Amino acid sequence: MAHPSKVIIVGAGLVGSLWAVFMARRGYSVQVYERRPDMRAAGYRGGRSINLAMSERGWKAIEMAGIRENIEKTALPMPGRMMHAISGELTFQPYGKEAEAIYSVSRGGLNLELLDIADRFPNVEFFFEHRCVEVDLELPYITFEDMRSGETKTVDAPLIFGTDGAFSAVRYSLQKTDRFQYTQFYLEHGYKELSIPPAADGGYRMDPKALHIWPRGNFMMIALPNADFSFTCTLFLPFEGAVSFEHLKSDADVSAFFQRYFPDSLALMPTLTHDFRENPTSSLVTVKCRPWQWQNRILLLGDAAHAIVPFYGQGMNAGFEDCTILDGLHEQFNGDWSQMIPVFARSRAADGDAIAELAQRNFIEMRDLVADPKFLLRKKIAAHLHAQHPGFLPVYSMVTFSNTPYHIALEEEEAQNRLFSEILQLEGIEENWAENKQVMEIFGAWMAARRRVDGTRI
Amino acid sequence: MAHPSKVIIVGAGLVGSLWAVFMARRGYSVQVYERRPDMRAAGYRGGRSINLAMSERGWKAIEMAGIRENIEKTALPMPGRMMHAISGELTFQPYGKEAEAIYSVSRGGLNLELLDIADRFPNVEFFFEHRCVEVDLELPYITFEDMRSGETKTVDAPLIFGTDGAFSAVRYSLQKTDRFQYTQFYLEHGYKELSIPPAADGGYRMDPKALHIWPRGNFMMIALPNADFSFTCTLFLPFEGAVSFEHLKSDADVSAFFQRYFPDSLALMPTLTHDFRENPTSSLVTVKCRPWQWQNRILLLGDAAHAIVPFYGQGMNAGFEDCTILDGLHEQFNGDWSQMIPVFARSRAADGDAIAELAQRNFIEMRDLVADPKFLLRKKIAAHLHAQHPGFLPVYSMVTFSNTPYHIALEEEEAQNRLFSEILQLEGIEENWAENKQVMEIFGAWMAARRRVDGTRI
Repeated sequence: MAHPSKVIIVGAGLVGSLWAVFMARRGYSVQVYERRPDMRAAGYRGGRSINLAMSERGWKAIEMAGIRENIEKTALPMPGRMMHAISGELTFQPYGKEAEAIYSVSRGGLNLELLDIADRFPNVEFFFEHRCVEVDLELPYITFEDMRSGETKTVDAPLIFGTDGAFSAVRYSLQKTDRFQYTQFYLEHGYKELSIPPAADGGYRMDPKALHIWPRGNFMMIALPNADFSFTCTLFLPFEGAVSFEHLKSDADVSAFFQRYFPDSLALMPTLTHDFRENPTSSLVTVKCRPWQWQNRILLLGDAAHAIVPFYGQGMNAGFEDCTILDGLHEQFNGDWSQMIPVFARSRAADGDAIAELAQRNFIEMRDLVADPKFLLRKKIAAHLHAQHPGFLPVYSMVTFSNTPYHIALEEEEAQNRLFSEILQLEGIEENWAENKQVMEIFGAWMAARRRVDGTRI
Repeated sequence: MAHPSKVIIVGAGLVGSLWAVFMARRGYSVQVYERRPDMRAAGYRGGRSINLAMSERGWKAIEMAGIRENIEKTALPMPGRMMHAISGELTFQPYGKEAEAIYSVSRGGLNLELLDIADRFPNVEFFFEHRCVEVDLELPYITFEDMRSGETKTVDAPLIFGTDGAFSAVRYSLQKTDRFQYTQFYLEHGYKELSIPPAADGGYRMDPKALHIWPRGNFMMIALPNADFSFTCTLFLPFEGAVSFEHLKSDADVSAFFQRYFPDSLALMPTLTHDFRENPTSSLVTVKCRPWQWQNRILLLGDAAHAIVPFYGQGMNAGFEDCTILDGLHEQFNGDWSQMIPVFARSRAADGDAIAELAQRNFIEMRDLVADPKFLLRKKIAAHLHAQHPGFLPVYSMVTFSNTPYHIALEEEEAQNRLFSEILQLEGIEENWAENKQVMEIFGAWMAARRRVDGTRI
């Protein structure tokens, strides 16, 4: 395959804009097509985006794109979770070691920065309000509709990147090809964005150094701090059923619901009923597909390849990691896409599946387990073991504070589940976990077995 | 909802033609649109259709449509499986009791009969070479392209049935609606149709009173008799891997492969290499989706709702049962579609999932287990228990020779797996199964427990 000098990127969201920067740096002539208007002119429309939690994989990509400093200025560190009991009691649980944190970042702000940095390259061209109509699978063409004029234009496309999100038009073209594996799975829960505005004195109404969670079993609310001293809250609740969105029709329903389940939040949310009424209730989809590529000429990246639920805070981080990994392969294979694309699509797909699974499991953890004393005890013991044995990394840290492939993190979770189910059965473990010698014996045997397994891998 | 007098059926395959008959009988004005040319004029194109195995659910529908006699004339009873070992040794295993059989039926012939019977109703109109372009989800319209003229026409469609198969255009319209659950899953195996022509004396080259199977572990060949004294064979083999289609490129590859794995078939297949070269290698898809309906106005039936792999011989039977069940609901709800459609879609979906699962499992059974002595022993004991206790129905019989809902058959399979894993552990069971008292004790306790479970259900 010849090395094309031109690439088409479909979608100028977070991953598309970032990938435009990477491709521009590599000297390609880059055309980016986006269905929506330019958000720099049109203004960013919130109301249904969950705040982003930037972690290691995201920072790595941001740094490679050269905008780490700009983003850091407004990123707010959240070193742990703050759990809100119905009683109002607060429990703080650190995410990792001291100085480790995830960062609350504005999706709109980040996207604007990425568009700006990409646009500064003379070899990047943006086409907004262009809807992808058809991807030609036989010939290297792609057709867009200019949504302002209604005209369609067919563009030469030797290499196409589909970064057009969970409902990717590029992927829909691939879906009808023979043997294309595809699943779209919606949770029975929806979500609604709500808000905690700044306090009367202009400061935060809650501790901004935490991701706040109101775990309520089958549902939950979370809140992430913003740089303007507000919090963006998200309520996750089933669409139907006994306690669900379908029963929250009137302002009175909403107030009664919050009074019952989130009483401590009511005083913090003066615009609750208004926000609840005005903001849409959105669904939560997981998308899995194979293969991610077509004939070394079309490749899906980010949500288009692996849309996941937001409960591990990894959606954007995973999409950004796609870019850093693919850029690394570009280096390794000297820009030979006929080698890069199959290697990337094949090896990265297992990571996409793994983070999708981890994200779904973390919903159970966030909405339910974080209120379970056994679970908190496990977290404490894991942190203790991690502090004493740097070779042992809790799965959350592996996903969030390392670049370990997601599929290894998922395997590690299975292994750690076995470890802790043994440890948590020890008598008196609630009190004696720090000094119980059996803990170290079980842990030592488990680590030795892990090393043997790792050894056979080599 | 008003009771519409007009219905649109998209797809004139087996299920669409049958459903046209049912709807015509109920007095509706029926329009059937089909992408392909009229097979009565154009001739039926074989080469990639697996023969049909008609069983109880199919016969029931055929009888209600009034064409049982016509179909019976050419249907060939297959009362059991004939297993071909590599050595050439044959083992016959009955499918059910004496006089029970599945029937080899020509897909083309059956479709022709159904088109004919439907066309005899004055209130049925067929539109061939009409491709469904778009289903309007807001307004009751559907758009077709007349493939001969290239013109599109938009048709008033108060009630639409999507019977347009595994790659249903109607379903693609629904797929982009919020919270639509969808999976298309391809097996790693493909299939190729081959043929055993009549013998020189004009008769069959093998016993026509059986479905022939060459089980070879990870792959297999099957053969079903035709009324013209030929057999239609189907080779199921992985697309890629050590033993796979990708390694069967030349005639010599094909001959060597058959020599090695199906030596007894070589003499029966004089056109083998020609057929292998000329017939396509096709893929095997399972499709699951929810919901099957849209606003009590659009309903998916047959493969469009639940495409399954062919290994239980239930694809057509399941689609036909959709029709008999929905027709029954029409009676029950006096033609009130606003009640029928949601009841059908909700209750029948579990059956669609169950037969999809059973069909995938039966592939393992056909290609591998039927050559396993333990498995054959289980079948023998099951038949023995069934003969002595009519209340006990082997799962294969429940699926094939009864109208028990598929989801109950799947539950029954789980239960019977537990029963036989206990029985097959008994000492000397290979020899003493017929008189071993423990067999009857275990069976008695299992039946009693089942009755208790059934009791609590009521």
